[in-house]
Amino acid sequence: MSSIKPTIPSGTRDFSPEEVYKRRFIFNTIRSVFEKYGYQPIETPTMENRDTLEGKYGDEGDKLLFRVLNSGDFFEKNQQEFYQFISMQIRILDQLKIPLKEYLRRSKEEIESENRIREQLGIKTPELYSEDTKFTFKDLIPQIADKGLRYDLTVPFARYVVMHQNEITFPFKRYQIQPVYRADRPQRGRYREFFQCDADFVGSDSLVNEMELIQIYDEVFSELKMSVSIKLNNRKVLVGMAEAINASEKFLDITTAIDKFDKIGIEGVKQELMKREISGSQLEVIEKFFGLEGSPNEKLSAARNLLLQSETGLNGISELEKTFEHLASSGATKNSVEVDFTLARGLNYYTGAIIEVKPNDVKMGSVGGGGRYDDLTGMFGLKGVSGVGISFGADRIYDVMEELKLFPASAAKGTQVLFCCFDDASMNYCLPLVKKVRDEGLAAEIYPSAEKMKKQLKYANDKKIPFVIVVGDNEMQSGKLAFKDMESGEQTAITIEEIIQRLK
Amino acid sequence: MSSIKPTIPSGTRDFSPEEVYKRRFIFNTIRSVFEKYGYQPIETPTMENRDTLEGKYGDEGDKLLFRVLNSGDFFEKNQQEFYQFISMQIRILDQLKIPLKEYLRRSKEEIESENRIREQLGIKTPELYSEDTKFTFKDLIPQIADKGLRYDLTVPFARYVVMHQNEITFPFKRYQIQPVYRADRPQRGRYREFFQCDADFVGSDSLVNEMELIQIYDEVFSELKMSVSIKLNNRKVLVGMAEAINASEKFLDITTAIDKFDKIGIEGVKQELMKREISGSQLEVIEKFFGLEGSPNEKLSAARNLLLQSETGLNGISELEKTFEHLASSGATKNSVEVDFTLARGLNYYTGAIIEVKPNDVKMGSVGGGGRYDDLTGMFGLKGVSGVGISFGADRIYDVMEELKLFPASAAKGTQVLFCCFDDASMNYCLPLVKKVRDEGLAAEIYPSAEKMKKQLKYANDKKIPFVIVVGDNEMQSGKLAFKDMESGEQTAITIEEIIQRLK
Repeated sequence: MSSIKPTIPSGTRDFSPEEVYKRRFIFNTIRSVFEKYGYQPIETPTMENRDTLEGKYGDEGDKLLFRVLNSGDFFEKNQQEFYQFISMQIRILDQLKIPLKEYLRRSKEEIESENRIREQLGIKTPELYSEDTKFTFKDLIPQIADKGLRYDLTVPFARYVVMHQNEITFPFKRYQIQPVYRADRPQRGRYREFFQCDADFVGSDSLVNEMELIQIYDEVFSELKMSVSIKLNNRKVLVGMAEAINASEKFLDITTAIDKFDKIGIEGVKQELMKREISGSQLEVIEKFFGLEGSPNEKLSAARNLLLQSETGLNGISELEKTFEHLASSGATKNSVEVDFTLARGLNYYTGAIIEVKPNDVKMGSVGGGGRYDDLTGMFGLKGVSGVGISFGADRIYDVMEELKLFPASAAKGTQVLFCCFDDASMNYCLPLVKKVRDEGLAAEIYPSAEKMKKQLKYANDKKIPFVIVVGDNEMQSGKLAFKDMESGEQTAITIEEIIQRLK
Repeated sequence: MSSIKPTIPSGTRDFSPEEVYKRRFIFNTIRSVFEKYGYQPIETPTMENRDTLEGKYGDEGDKLLFRVLNSGDFFEKNQQEFYQFISMQIRILDQLKIPLKEYLRRSKEEIESENRIREQLGIKTPELYSEDTKFTFKDLIPQIADKGLRYDLTVPFARYVVMHQNEITFPFKRYQIQPVYRADRPQRGRYREFFQCDADFVGSDSLVNEMELIQIYDEVFSELKMSVSIKLNNRKVLVGMAEAINASEKFLDITTAIDKFDKIGIEGVKQELMKREISGSQLEVIEKFFGLEGSPNEKLSAARNLLLQSETGLNGISELEKTFEHLASSGATKNSVEVDFTLARGLNYYTGAIIEVKPNDVKMGSVGGGGRYDDLTGMFGLKGVSGVGISFGADRIYDVMEELKLFPASAAKGTQVLFCCFDDASMNYCLPLVKKVRDEGLAAEIYPSAEKMKKQLKYANDKKIPFVIVVGDNEMQSGKLAFKDMESGEQTAITIEEIIQRLK
């Protein structure tokens, strides 16, 4: 064996059978609840066009896109232009007498001097590179990579809605469970390939949708036996708060500070806000806001009094009230649903409801979040489509469930019984019996060769197969098979029919 | 709305809800049979390291790999070396007085002359590019793309086995259902992203495995209601045939010709072989071979007589006989299992059994195939691990099932009932009823706003929701809801409990 073991790219993972089974348990739970609420699955390609992805996630996001090299002879086509450009760069360099090393970190003045020389030489910079006279790899990307890997499920969904708008029944309830890819620096709990589970409802602005998405969270986490708190806010309330203290122009500053509430507490938030020149009397109002206590309805009516000057703020309160009203009509939830005015996630994106889910029994960030956005498909030219959606953080849910030992034994159910034989004769005897067990829908294996019994039993043990059937001469004569419980060690002699009954 | 609709990369696909449901029906069927036979799922990353992928699929395969650009500042690091190289190229070019255009297609003589000038100038070609003095994009790839997309499931599986050899229970039965990516020219039925469904058993050379894989094919296609023929051959038999006619050195020529049997018939194969200087008496033996008729056992014993001179050939026959013997012990299959000596698929890879599955009722290529390979993990330094595996062609299976209308109605089961309301009051009345229906595990929706009834019914119709519940004042007073069958148009007034009974 070679001493160098193969590896996988950093930030990616292999999943063992046990992990696949447990992850499937989470995905199946989410999927079945989504479908019970009328959400339908779509799937989009792993690769999207550069145009679809670029400029959708901000500059930071653009840097984190994985880009796929064009295949075929695309470069041959551009080779000549590329050479011409490089040639020009180097001639200029010779004239400037700048060593290459320096050239790579030359200043603005040097670039301008370069441009003058270029003019003198009568050399026209090819249009391709006209914006920057310094050739960097970034300039090459548009030439060599037309595609990128899916970065989230929201942009592909928006693209899907616009592309298939004539086939889709609106309002459109879709869910999507697929991996996404980000060239982020890998660290504990942060991967370069991970699954997202999104449900979105587009083309309807009824608050029944918000309510149902809360129900979905409630139901999924109940089924996973994970106790959570579902927190609600509304962007309009945050806007209203800024209006109420006459600080609309500092809206982003305020919400950025508020977003850190969990980490730095009220005093920390106040300090941040003071740095941003929020006055003492303004801070007092904000503090009142965050100090509100009581049931959701109590909090909301108290907040209403603080927002009397802001129509937007009052609208936000009304939306939250209506959502709670729908929730009350529908029946009790199993997890607590709370109003949290400090909730400001994804603020640049959401326009109405903001939702976040946190586990109660373990210190961990949110395991889900979502909200309403007024213009999902505008980026692809289809205006006026409002949507609301939620997402489950499958990896974090997995980690919480592992930590709290919430996976049921049945989640990782593999082979239920292993047939062990001593020789060809007993193997021939067993083959139809294996089939009989499988025909009953039970997962069964036969050890494929008559190896030492110890080895066969070790296989059952390592693979956590709970029962073993050992067949030798006696068993073949009597038809009563040695049926062994691998956990207790107990062994009984019973017929195959009796075994099937026990396994079912 | 913008007039330019967004697109997806050629050769990739969006899947609509109906398609996802139908594909899931296929995957679930395959998955549940795999698991019944003790195969366990693993999943590997979409991206693999370049080292893992390159050189595993032949030159043609290397060209079809999708490569992912390194992220971050990797290029900055190489920029200087890159500039130096280009600079050198262009200085040489100036000396040679070759225009750039010509340079790109210069001859061997010109390259040699370049090398002389380089020597005279005392310029050393950077080691990176020493093999070829002409800079092409291919040379750049190792510098800029460390990763590639999964090309199949076999190489990642081999990599997985070697990487996790200490955690794995051998023999190891694994299955894997994931998409793979190939930069092939897209055409009808050929995609750049498509799913493979593989089951492999490594670390056991028992022929019980071959037999069970045949049973898996038989069972999956029975459950899909697709009639197929399962064809078997053995590479050793093909080797033996070449030996029997004293043409071992032409083994590849012979099998390449044989592989075309389906397309060009026996006469075509004979012509191909004559071109490769296979004599008349040799052809006679080959023809006898292909002319064999009768049951598998009759064919095998007749073939045995033709292969008496080849030990390898006789071993191949014995393996096939043993496989059929195991199959006979296990009980009848639902689809026919045949011996087909013209079967030569994946020949450079398989060392024993060769398996292929073809649909009976539609003209289409194989919907599955596999075989035994003696050295799966050798490419990653772990020698002596024998394996046998099969693969399902999910896209072709989908196409056959669509053509023959084999998908059951239940495959695409979406929302079962839609609640339609006239106003806020009826909506509040309905919300707890929707929850009640969902609590019974039924998929239900409420139209999220009190729009015109026509619009609500159209939604049910477009989304193929089979039943609708209409609730107005009368219904709220009586508790008897208007329950409408969307297909028959029939409408009855019944309680929610009765409705649940009917929907179950």
